Amino acid sequence: MADQTEATTGTAQDLHGALSIGVDVGGTKIAGGVVAVDGEVLATIRRDSPAQERQAIIDTIVEVVRELKNDFPSCTTVGIGAAGFIAEDRNTIAHGTNLDWTGLRLADAISERVGMPVVVENDANAFGWAEVRFGAARGKRNALVVAIGTGVGGAVVVDGRLLRGARGFAAEIGHINVVPDGRPCGCGLNGCLERYAAGTALGVNGWEQARFRPAYAARIIELSGGDANNISGKAVTAAAREGDPCALECYAQLTHWLGRGLADLCAVLDPEVIVIAGGLAEAGDILLEPTRKAFEAALTAGTHRPPIPLVLAAGGQEAGLVGAADLARQS
Amino acid sequence: MADQTEATTGTAQDLHGALSIGVDVGGTKIAGGVVAVDGEVLATIRRDSPAQERQAIIDTIVEVVRELKNDFPSCTTVGIGAAGFIAEDRNTIAHGTNLDWTGLRLADAISERVGMPVVVENDANAFGWAEVRFGAARGKRNALVVAIGTGVGGAVVVDGRLLRGARGFAAEIGHINVVPDGRPCGCGLNGCLERYAAGTALGVNGWEQARFRPAYAARIIELSGGDANNISGKAVTAAAREGDPCALECYAQLTHWLGRGLADLCAVLDPEVIVIAGGLAEAGDILLEPTRKAFEAALTAGTHRPPIPLVLAAGGQEAGLVGAADLARQS
Amino acid sequence: MADQTEATTGTAQDLHGALSIGVDVGGTKIAGGVVAVDGEVLATIRRDSPAQERQAIIDTIVEVVRELKNDFPSCTTVGIGAAGFIAEDRNTIAHGTNLDWTGLRLADAISERVGMPVVVENDANAFGWAEVRFGAARGKRNALVVAIGTGVGGAVVVDGRLLRGARGFAAEIGHINVVPDGRPCGCGLNGCLERYAAGTALGVNGWEQARFRPAYAARIIELSGGDANNISGKAVTAAAREGDPCALECYAQLTHWLGRGLADLCAVLDPEVIVIAGGLAEAGDILLEPTRKAFEAALTAGTHRPPIPLVLAAGGQEAGLVGAADLARQS
Amino acid sequence: MADQTEATTGTAQDLHGALSIGVDVGGTKIAGGVVAVDGEVLATIRRDSPAQERQAIIDTIVEVVRELKNDFPSCTTVGIGAAGFIAEDRNTIAHGTNLDWTGLRLADAISERVGMPVVVENDANAFGWAEVRFGAARGKRNALVVAIGTGVGGAVVVDGRLLRGARGFAAEIGHINVVPDGRPCGCGLNGCLERYAAGTALGVNGWEQARFRPAYAARIIELSGGDANNISGKAVTAAAREGDPCALECYAQLTHWLGRGLADLCAVLDPEVIVIAGGLAEAGDILLEPTRKAFEAALTAGTHRPPIPLVLAAGGQEAGLVGAADLARQS
Repeated sequence: MADQTEATTGTAQDLHGALSIGVDVGGTKIAGGVVAVDGEVLATIRRDSPAQERQAIIDTIVEVVRELKNDFPSCTTVGIGAAGFIAEDRNTIAHGTNLDWTGLRLADAISERVGMPVVVENDANAFGWAEVRFGAARGKRNALVVAIGTGVGGAVVVDGRLLRGARGFAAEIGHINVVPDGRPCGCGLNGCLERYAAGTALGVNGWEQARFRPAYAARIIELSGGDANNISGKAVTAAAREGDPCALECYAQLTHWLGRGLADLCAVLDPEVIVIAGGLAEAGDILLEPTRKAFEAALTAGTHRPPIPLVLAAGGQEAGLVGAADLARQS
Repeated sequence: MADQTEATTGTAQDLHGALSIGVDVGGTKIAGGVVAVDGEVLATIRRDSPAQERQAIIDTIVEVVRELKNDFPSCTTVGIGAAGFIAEDRNTIAHGTNLDWTGLRLADAISERVGMPVVVENDANAFGWAEVRFGAARGKRNALVVAIGTGVGGAVVVDGRLLRGARGFAAEIGHINVVPDGRPCGCGLNGCLERYAAGTALGVNGWEQARFRPAYAARIIELSGGDANNISGKAVTAAAREGDPCALECYAQLTHWLGRGLADLCAVLDPEVIVIAGGLAEAGDILLEPTRKAFEAALTAGTHRPPIPLVLAAGGQEAGLVGAADLARQS
Repeated sequence: MADQTEATTGTAQDLHGALSIGVDVGGTKIAGGVVAVDGEVLATIRRDSPAQERQAIIDTIVEVVRELKNDFPSCTTVGIGAAGFIAEDRNTIAHGTNLDWTGLRLADAISERVGMPVVVENDANAFGWAEVRFGAARGKRNALVVAIGTGVGGAVVVDGRLLRGARGFAAEIGHINVVPDGRPCGCGLNGCLERYAAGTALGVNGWEQARFRPAYAARIIELSGGDANNISGKAVTAAAREGDPCALECYAQLTHWLGRGLADLCAVLDPEVIVIAGGLAEAGDILLEPTRKAFEAALTAGTHRPPIPLVLAAGGQEAGLVGAADLARQS
Repeated sequence: MADQTEATTGTAQDLHGALSIGVDVGGTKIAGGVVAVDGEVLATIRRDSPAQERQAIIDTIVEVVRELKNDFPSCTTVGIGAAGFIAEDRNTIAHGTNLDWTGLRLADAISERVGMPVVVENDANAFGWAEVRFGAARGKRNALVVAIGTGVGGAVVVDGRLLRGARGFAAEIGHINVVPDGRPCGCGLNGCLERYAAGTALGVNGWEQARFRPAYAARIIELSGGDANNISGKAVTAAAREGDPCALECYAQLTHWLGRGLADLCAVLDPEVIVIAGGLAEAGDILLEPTRKAFEAALTAGTHRPPIPLVLAAGGQEAGLVGAADLARQS
């Protein structure tokens, strides 16, 4: 088990005002950190996630929080970012997507053991909040943060506040429909944005080419270790960087639908900026340029409104815990 | 020109607290009214709209406001509901869709002549606000109001406030895409929800049947005065009420896309209730029942969330001015 | 009632070998002619069609045939081209599409009164046969003739013979699907080629623009006499000839689907040439150029095969009776 | 290398009339046989195919033919079935799809070494011909044989003769479009029937479920040896036989498009029967029943025509060489 505490700054905590602890509960890692009011991370701890075991995860979270509190006793709040639908009480897991903890009052479970107020937020919300408070959408009162990785998640900020919806199910932007009766989605529907615009969709695009046009997809296959059955989005991105036509076609397909999906979201939300985050954001302009074109072509009343910029996220891997910590402070 | 002032109640105005004047600027009528804090309309005036003439419309609005103010001197604010994109200052017409008054500072133009503070709101927003304050979504902090008439407009209430977006262009729900490369839309795009779910779409569905399947569409044609080139949504609704299979197919087509569009909106917004308003809402269960089914089938994570009810709007034709008046009071 | 017999040539009939009478039964006209073996038309008679009355139509056909036989006694055969499905016996109307004469043994009904052998052919087949024998596909053993008018009909020649199919229902090329769940078709299906590529489809494309983008469609509306509800394909073609962007977009939409449909047909039939006939063919290059591009882009193995030329039909309004007469001679 | 000659019957060859040798050149095997006029196979030889080496394949074919001719000296003709486009001379490989022998005059190359007349036919044509002459479409003058395996191939018989087209490229039925802008196809297009209706498409359907709905697809994954990346059509079929809902959904998706594709083909060809052959045909009613329903729902004028039966192929693995041998005899 990995275990490390590192003081990332020597600055005295009192300069930072009220400190808050943020915890990001991921599929493979649980990361905790002490976050100052300006978003600076004063210390972090990272633990391997005990996979599917509910009690073990709770224990690990408690451990991480206690350790950080011990080092920074002035911490007053705890924010936890977790996957799934979080109920409007910011406590109960209304529906756990990866973990079997639907119904759990997670905030209560942690709070009673660490003796601090705890709030739970959806992890994409926590991440997006960090972008709006300290990152690429800093200072914007209306913003859309789109995280493109295994799936497509997002955070929506309206009038300076997170859009959570009536039940905490809002901002499920990966599950708006883009292709009627299209690819099957894990959510039970067909044709969701996520199935055409996530990093996994890039892999699917590459795999279809590899399977039915092997000569055209030769470079992608090569970069996937020669296995046409295991094409990864990363291999497609690497080939696209070299200018490989097949990989660029895979990207064109993805960005066509991503741009259209973003246009639909902007018709409803009219954000001041769109921040692109997640693993696929690392592709940079290969992703951004064609997405911008597709987005602009699909935006209603596009010629009558100020342009909505698409920018890359500024936050790194700590953005999730930073956002969670900051949201805890706001409650 | 029609001209009528009617005191709709004898109740003393002081029982109602601060009175506000609401004005609803429609394509054919300009309606003004005095609205109490509980939403009650104490008096209304209705004038024919001077069509496309910008100055004449301003003059008429001023006239209506002055007359109401004269009868109810305690009125302190004016709210105007108008079609188009209203800038975030709630003053400037950022883009007029029907009228050529883009760039006009409408609130200023009225305010300097009537001597009261004036705010301008998008008419669908004003209408929807009335539903949330006094109508079918009364007391809900998160709601979606969908007005289905010539087009599909909407108002979104998030955390008890209208979603206006960064520039006042939010809630353009009629222009999310439902059919890739589908029917041409007035907004310049193809396949917008509006082109498949508005009352006009119902007419188009009927027209396509009348044109290419005249025998099947016989009843619809008959109810349209025998002219297969001028099928109206109303004729289709009348035939559907009789159980005409062709008309019901036209409705099935419309509700399929409407349900899907509503599901996309709920994936993003997670409202507590959806209110269906506008001319097509008069169809009642013929519209509502199949829309509900289509909506539920297309809602992501539908089995994991509390149901989102679809209900008909409670407000009548005065809802627009009631909402505008109330919004003015809130500013 | 129109009534005219004109000797279109002074050439002695014996120079032409066996003469045959062709009759083209259209929706508004019944045209008969004496046709020589080289396709020359020696005389024609044209009568108004007695609309929907089955017996009256038979009487008119008999009258026309008798008159022509009287003038050219050496005529030995009669061929009739009629709309609908003609059974493989080339006698029975298996399914009349416009006329209520399903089940009628039309060849027998005429033959017993005129005392000559009679065959009945589908009118598109008769027309297409004339193109293959004497027109734009002259001498080709494999050809596809596509008639684009109110609908999309066709004739397929395989190894020098008309493709009639097992029951006489073959070559219904207007009813292959191009848009899944697309526009309703008179045949009961949705999304048929005919609904996207017929002259009526051009009118529908124009009507959709006129209805929802009136400014953009202004020229089309003007050329339709100002009535946005009655946009004709002809008006769209006239505007396209002037370079009107909206009309050209209507054409682009039509030719996209037409090209794709032709490509599907060629994947199955591999003709040596495609002949475009019917009212829309009069548009010439406005139709042909973009159709060619769309066709080539959609043709499977297109880079590995000799090009398949798209050409305009050579035959005029007599092609239907010429083909019918010639087919009668072949039986 | 496998090598076997087996006399499959003791019947004297003179009872069978003119004998013909058929050779089926597959991707992994080259099979030869002596075929009597009634389709009976008197002897067969099977050799491993020397993969991609052009000369080695020719040598193997020659060897097989010589050996059979040696045992049955009265053989007078040779028919070869090979993948790819065969030119109208029934000699030249116009475009080799798997082998690099485009341009080769294969019939000449064999004929000059074996001293007998040789014809080459597309392998699907050869196979389909056997069905029409001796199998499930025996005696039909108009038939459609569809082979569903790795791809979707076919043979079309019109008026008792194979439809070869002007250049030998006809009957490419796997490459008609069913989904506009759909899955990429090896032929360079997108959305071909083959990509939705071949056995590989079944595997793709299963793979998409396995990847994005692993719990739902659990049985399919299990039957694929636990590897969600290597779902085979066979595993889907096995699960469907058990009634697994996910596998049946994969089948429903396939049969929906297959039925629609067959309906398009019948609109053009009007066959008397459709024969389903190829590896996927082994699924039997799991394939046939839903395909029939989808086909009937998508067939134009379906209520006005006699039903077109869908039946399973009768021929086994020797059908390819039987058809090739018989076609050689007909030339």
